[in-house]
Amino acid sequence: MRELMVDLGERSYPIYIGEGLLPEASSYFLKHGISTKSPLLIVTDSEVASRHLSTLENSLRSGGFTVASAIVDSGESSKSLAVLEKLVTKALEAGLDRKSTIVALGGGVVGDLAGFVAASYMRGVKFVQVPTTILAHDSSVGGKVAVNHPLAKNIIGAFHQPELVLYDLNTLQTLPPREVKAGLSEVVKHGLIWDAEFAQWCEDHAEKLLALDPDSLGYALYKGCSVKAAVVSQDERENDLRAILNLGHTIGHALEAVAGYGELLHGEAISIGMIGSARLGLRYGAPEEVYTTTKRVLSKCGLPVKLPEHFDVDAIMDAMMHDKKFSEKTMVFVVPTAIGTVEIKKDVPTDWVREIVEQLKLEA
Amino acid sequence: MRELMVDLGERSYPIYIGEGLLPEASSYFLKHGISTKSPLLIVTDSEVASRHLSTLENSLRSGGFTVASAIVDSGESSKSLAVLEKLVTKALEAGLDRKSTIVALGGGVVGDLAGFVAASYMRGVKFVQVPTTILAHDSSVGGKVAVNHPLAKNIIGAFHQPELVLYDLNTLQTLPPREVKAGLSEVVKHGLIWDAEFAQWCEDHAEKLLALDPDSLGYALYKGCSVKAAVVSQDERENDLRAILNLGHTIGHALEAVAGYGELLHGEAISIGMIGSARLGLRYGAPEEVYTTTKRVLSKCGLPVKLPEHFDVDAIMDAMMHDKKFSEKTMVFVVPTAIGTVEIKKDVPTDWVREIVEQLKLEA
Repeated sequence: MRELMVDLGERSYPIYIGEGLLPEASSYFLKHGISTKSPLLIVTDSEVASRHLSTLENSLRSGGFTVASAIVDSGESSKSLAVLEKLVTKALEAGLDRKSTIVALGGGVVGDLAGFVAASYMRGVKFVQVPTTILAHDSSVGGKVAVNHPLAKNIIGAFHQPELVLYDLNTLQTLPPREVKAGLSEVVKHGLIWDAEFAQWCEDHAEKLLALDPDSLGYALYKGCSVKAAVVSQDERENDLRAILNLGHTIGHALEAVAGYGELLHGEAISIGMIGSARLGLRYGAPEEVYTTTKRVLSKCGLPVKLPEHFDVDAIMDAMMHDKKFSEKTMVFVVPTAIGTVEIKKDVPTDWVREIVEQLKLEA
Repeated sequence: MRELMVDLGERSYPIYIGEGLLPEASSYFLKHGISTKSPLLIVTDSEVASRHLSTLENSLRSGGFTVASAIVDSGESSKSLAVLEKLVTKALEAGLDRKSTIVALGGGVVGDLAGFVAASYMRGVKFVQVPTTILAHDSSVGGKVAVNHPLAKNIIGAFHQPELVLYDLNTLQTLPPREVKAGLSEVVKHGLIWDAEFAQWCEDHAEKLLALDPDSLGYALYKGCSVKAAVVSQDERENDLRAILNLGHTIGHALEAVAGYGELLHGEAISIGMIGSARLGLRYGAPEEVYTTTKRVLSKCGLPVKLPEHFDVDAIMDAMMHDKKFSEKTMVFVVPTAIGTVEIKKDVPTDWVREIVEQLKLEA
C-alpha cells in the first residue's frame, strides 16, 4: 500500500493506493473524520455500480455509516446541471446535512460531477474520491470539479478538495484494454513534464502496465499523482505553473471537439497532441530526443501517435482558435525543452501550429 | 459617503454607501482592480433594469469597460439552475474569461443568483454587488450565494465574496413602501442581536427611515452592514457564531413556507418571528423589556408583529420540524437575553414553541 499527501495547507489530503482497499473503506473513512452521524451519498455510474457498489456500501454500513447511493448513466452526458439537480434531490431525500459526505465511486466523469455536487450542496459538504480508472488518477488530484454546459465543457464548477482518495488497484482489473491505454496517456504526461526518470520507467514498464501488473500500476499511479500534487501544491487555482499540466491538451481538446465523442478517447487525443507539442519543441531548438522519446514511450503504451487521415485540418485549427480565444497570429502552448521539462510559449505562430497538425498525419 | 471594510483576510472587501455612486461606478471598479481587458456581465431583473441599468452601463462603458447585460424575471423563481444555465450561455456569448467580473445590480435574488454564477463560471470569477434594496444590505455581506432547488431554498450554492459593494442610496428612493418596511426588518435585527444603542436609534429614527431620508438610511445601512461584517469576520462559513444572524428566522421561514409566496415578504415573516423569539426569551428569564422593546421598534418601522388569524399552527410546526430536522421534542432557537444580546438555545421544548406560535395570533 502506498500513501501520498497532497500538500494544500489546511486543505491537504491523503491518497491511498493499494489492492483490496474498497472492502476496508469504512476504516479509512473513520480515520479521516468522516462522521457516522450524518448520512453519506455515493454517486456512481451504471457500469461501475454493477461491479463495485455493493462492496463499498457493505463496507461503509458495517462501519456504522448510513449510506444512500445514486447511479447515473455512464459517459460525459451525465456531467450536466440536470443530473446535478437530480443528485441534489437524492441528497435531500436521503437527509444529507451540512456534515454529510458525498463519495465519488468511478472515473473522471463521476468524480467531476459528484465533486461539484459536494462543492455546492448546502454551499459545500465533504467529498471522498474512490477512483476506478487509471485516467482518474489525474482528476483525483487538484480539486477541479465541474459539469458541462451545452456550449462548453467543464465551464460550471469549483475547486473543492476531497478529504481523502481511496484508490483500490483491484477495481482496475476489469478495465477494457482501450481504456487502460488511454489512462496511461496522462501517466506518461506527468513524466514528460516533470520527471525524466519516471518517463523512462514508463517506457521500461509499458508491457507490465498494459498487463495490469498491480505493483507496476501502483507505482505508476503513485508517481503520476505525485507529479500532479507537486504542481498543484504550488498553484492551487491555476494562475501560472498549473498550466504545464496542459501538455498536449491544446491540440488534444481540438481533436476531441472535431472527432465527435467516442472516436477518440481523451487519453488518445492528448497522446497525439503530445506528439505535436514535441514537434513544436524541435522548432524551438529542443534536442531530437524530445520528439523520439515522447513518441517511443507513447507507442509502447499502445497509444496513437498519428492523426487519422480523415481529420480536417481547418476544423482542428478553428476548434483551437475558438477554444482558447487565441489571437489570429499567435497561440499559447506548453512546449517540451527536454524530457521532464516544459516551458509555456505565449507567442507560437499559428502557421507553425498548422504545419505541425498537418505533419501529424504523416507520423510513421 | 460612508465606507466599511468587511474583514476576511485576503478576501476582505469594501462596502461604499452614499448618494450618486451608480454614475461613478467605473472609478470604483477601476480603483479595486476590475480589469477593462476582459468583458463584464451585469445581471439584473426586469424591474431594476428599467430604472438603473443604463446608468450603470454608461458609467462602465465610459470608463473603458466592455459590458454585456442579462435581464432575468424579477422574483424568487429566477433563483434556479435553469436561469443559471441561461446566464452562463450569455457569459460565453459575451466572451467572459477567467479574468472577467460578474456584477449583480438588484436586490437579494439577483445578488444570490449572479453571485453563484460568479462562483461557478470557469470555477470562479470576480463578483461585484450593486444592491438596490434595503434588504440586500444583509445579503451583500458574508458571501452566501445560491440558487433554489424545487424541494429546498438556497440549497445549491457557495461562499463567494465580492470584490466590492457599491450601495447607491438614490436607487432606494423608488422602492415601494412595503419593501422599505420589510427591508428595515433585517436592519432592526442587526441592532437586536448585537447593538442595543443601534436598536434604540432605529426606534428614534423610524419615521425618517420610512420617509427614505438619505442620511438616516445611509447610517442604518452602514450600521446594519457593520454588525453583519463583525459576525461574519469571526465565522465566515457558519460554524457557530454566524447562527445568531438567524434571530426570528426559524419561525419566519416556516411562515414563509406556509403562507405561499407573496402573502408575507421575508422581512415581514421574520418580524413576526422576532416577536416569537422575544417571547421565548421571557420564558428563559429575560427582562420584560426584551419583548416590549422588540415589539415597539418593529411596530414603529411599520412591520407586522401579529400572526394573521388564518395561519394554521400545525402547518407552521410541521414546516419548522421539516426545515431543520429537529428532534421531536426539542428545537434550536436564537433567543434574546437582553436588547443587543442573544444566545443559542439547543434544547427548546417543542411545546413552548407551539404555545408561542399560538400566542402570536393574540398580539395586540
